[in-house]
Amino acid sequence: MTTFRKTPPPPYYAVIFSSARTPGDNGYGKMAERMVELASRQPGFLGVESARGEDGFGITVSYWESAEAIAAWKANVEHAAAQQLGKSLWYEHYELKVAKVERAYGKAST
Amino acid sequence: MTTFRKTPPPPYYAVIFSSARTPGDNGYGKMAERMVELASRQPGFLGVESARGEDGFGITVSYWESAEAIAAWKANVEHAAAQQLGKSLWYEHYELKVAKVERAYGKAST
Repeated sequence: MTTFRKTPPPPYYAVIFSSARTPGDNGYGKMAERMVELASRQPGFLGVESARGEDGFGITVSYWESAEAIAAWKANVEHAAAQQLGKSLWYEHYELKVAKVERAYGKAST
Repeated sequence: MTTFRKTPPPPYYAVIFSSARTPGDNGYGKMAERMVELASRQPGFLGVESARGEDGFGITVSYWESAEAIAAWKANVEHAAAQQLGKSLWYEHYELKVAKVERAYGKAST
């Protein structure tokens, strides 16, 4: 998960998910892997980047072709179950933002 | 930096900065603190969230009232100098995206 994603030229969409984990794994690692696997099979999925520090605060950004693709992923049955477990078990707190990427550049293209 | 930011209701803007650090500190930690201090004095700054894993891959998301506020911060003289050092010294690679936040919710409001 911790690699740069090659995304197409904007516009496309980003879901910014910042979260604080509860202590202990409680099946979180396995679920996180499974969600990346599931998401990557969703229509309109462009990639995901994720980082979490030792303090348990993390940011995951997933990229999507459209707002419709994000809505379909949110409604995925297995993902919906994981969202419920996230809320009750894995996350102390989280904030989620849906944003339309308007411009993008990298080290090579600055 | 690793705390949740209270942002106003959308729309507002996010700068998604994902990066891989070069080995060693080389003044990076001090610069990062200084940039947060400087940014927080910029008009239109709404907050910043940041996470970096042990593998050196990190994501920083800063939030802004408008695209104009982001452009002014990019042009800030001290920030511009830090950008150059980032490119030549601190970052193996980075990707930057400017995105308009359309929807936002958190654990309490899902």
